[in-house]
Amino acid sequence: MHIAIVGAAGMLGSKLTKKLLEISKLQGRDISRLSLYDAVAAPRPSHSSIETSTLCLDFASLNGAQLIVSEKPDVIFHLAAIVSGEAEIEFDKGYRINLDGTRYLLEAIRHLNEQQGYFPRLVFASSIAVFGAPLPDPIPDSFHHTPLTSYGTQKAISELLLSDYSRHGFVDGIGLRLPTLCIRPGIPNKAASGFFSSILREPLQGLPAILPVSPSVKHWHTSPRSAVNFLLHAAGLDTRLLGWRRNLTLPGVSATVEEQIDALRRIAGEDAVKLIQHKVDPAIEKMVTGWAPGFEATRALELGFKSEQSFDEIIHAYVEDDLQVQS
Amino acid sequence: MHIAIVGAAGMLGSKLTKKLLEISKLQGRDISRLSLYDAVAAPRPSHSSIETSTLCLDFASLNGAQLIVSEKPDVIFHLAAIVSGEAEIEFDKGYRINLDGTRYLLEAIRHLNEQQGYFPRLVFASSIAVFGAPLPDPIPDSFHHTPLTSYGTQKAISELLLSDYSRHGFVDGIGLRLPTLCIRPGIPNKAASGFFSSILREPLQGLPAILPVSPSVKHWHTSPRSAVNFLLHAAGLDTRLLGWRRNLTLPGVSATVEEQIDALRRIAGEDAVKLIQHKVDPAIEKMVTGWAPGFEATRALELGFKSEQSFDEIIHAYVEDDLQVQS
Repeated sequence: MHIAIVGAAGMLGSKLTKKLLEISKLQGRDISRLSLYDAVAAPRPSHSSIETSTLCLDFASLNGAQLIVSEKPDVIFHLAAIVSGEAEIEFDKGYRINLDGTRYLLEAIRHLNEQQGYFPRLVFASSIAVFGAPLPDPIPDSFHHTPLTSYGTQKAISELLLSDYSRHGFVDGIGLRLPTLCIRPGIPNKAASGFFSSILREPLQGLPAILPVSPSVKHWHTSPRSAVNFLLHAAGLDTRLLGWRRNLTLPGVSATVEEQIDALRRIAGEDAVKLIQHKVDPAIEKMVTGWAPGFEATRALELGFKSEQSFDEIIHAYVEDDLQVQS
Repeated sequence: MHIAIVGAAGMLGSKLTKKLLEISKLQGRDISRLSLYDAVAAPRPSHSSIETSTLCLDFASLNGAQLIVSEKPDVIFHLAAIVSGEAEIEFDKGYRINLDGTRYLLEAIRHLNEQQGYFPRLVFASSIAVFGAPLPDPIPDSFHHTPLTSYGTQKAISELLLSDYSRHGFVDGIGLRLPTLCIRPGIPNKAASGFFSSILREPLQGLPAILPVSPSVKHWHTSPRSAVNFLLHAAGLDTRLLGWRRNLTLPGVSATVEEQIDALRRIAGEDAVKLIQHKVDPAIEKMVTGWAPGFEATRALELGFKSEQSFDEIIHAYVEDDLQVQS
């Protein structure tokens, strides 16, 4: 079985690569080949019996998409995206990567489908950014998509394309609306959502962190570990169970910032909590207040997608998978 | 005030043109100029004091869109589309006209906005085809868009683009999900929805008609007259009332085929009803069964959009506006 990851150099792509090399099987079949694509070079994994190639390319082009598809991977994980903040400012770039990129990929698959019957599973990383305020709590599976960012717009459009191309029989697509991933490993970044991770990640390492919003802000989270498991589950799912509604809101943990901090206290103690400094940033607070507080995710749960049940579990996943205490 | 109609040669475009020339005002301002665009020549109206031009062009191209926008119309009605059946079979053509066409138009507006502050009202004719079965009855405004045709997919994507370009301040857009228009004037066509009109239109002229589905099929209708009024109302609406949810499901009449026929009986008598021959077409019945039975349309009603209240009124609108009894 040949697997391709588009957007392999990112946090999620790297974790997925590592996991695939570890398990070396998908849908009960041996993985024989792994093709890693990204705009920047994905790190080449060592110590693996699986034939692995990395290629640096612009997938948001006819040539780039054709190149990926010409190797006829059985499963394509499409994780490539310009993130929310960048897509909002860099309007053309956001549409080129997040919309045209997905469309080139679907078109390349369609043409090979029509010529040679190529019919891959395409697992697409969508986002809860397809939802925009005002939002109910919890948000039902049937709630409409009224994104308030260009990023969310591009993800919602990609979902619609994925469904239509699947309905026409050109591709076996499934789109996953990932919750906000928490705790992201690494160093603090400038994403508006970055603090959800940093208020836990930094104190766990004995470092200070800033909380820029009210502790009552409620949002929808899952661990990077669960996100990888979602992708693998989607790659193996019987897509006949989806009907023509190919995009799923995935399960997660709905928690206020206060509940996040309570979990930190239980796991790392009051000293860790004291490292969080509350310093409101009105711009971030305004943005975050409109974000999704939580979802029912009924269909995804019925289809066997599993997230953590509590924020304690989310923190434990980070401690086990990623924590490297600075000394 | 300069008004442009893209897709002016169609049934709705022709009726809108006629109405604009009749009222010669919009938003309380005199209409000084009317520009009619379509892929086929729109009939040039006579007897008008308003400067009217017709141009035959392919709007689904960078040049075509730029040409329309370069004249800086204050209001653009975007009615151009490949219809449902054709977009389903002619995959590339459907995406080119119904998706790329809308995007070229939005891009041309954006560039003139960035260069010269051009900021037109764009009234976009969307469709209830953005909804796909299984559907509740009635469908609430917050129901998600899971189209089951490429046409519906392209309309849903255009809506998302319209919202995002409006949110960025490039255009003052509003999208209208029109109910199925009934009674369409003219001769029978091959659209799957054609029978909704022909089972009334033909008997009103003393001609036979075929009903290809069960009389219990329930669907959502408004008259072409109301559709024109919707477009005019949208052109004059205070769009601040919309917030960032720029697309509206419009009001209509939810009726079964049996209720349509009952209305025909009340207006034209049993002899007219006897001209309807019930002859099931399983392909049409299968398609139509998944169509929307009815909507709440709460927001549009609150914003002052008005449809007929009963099927009797819908038939009367046709009799008054379009009926020419064959002699």
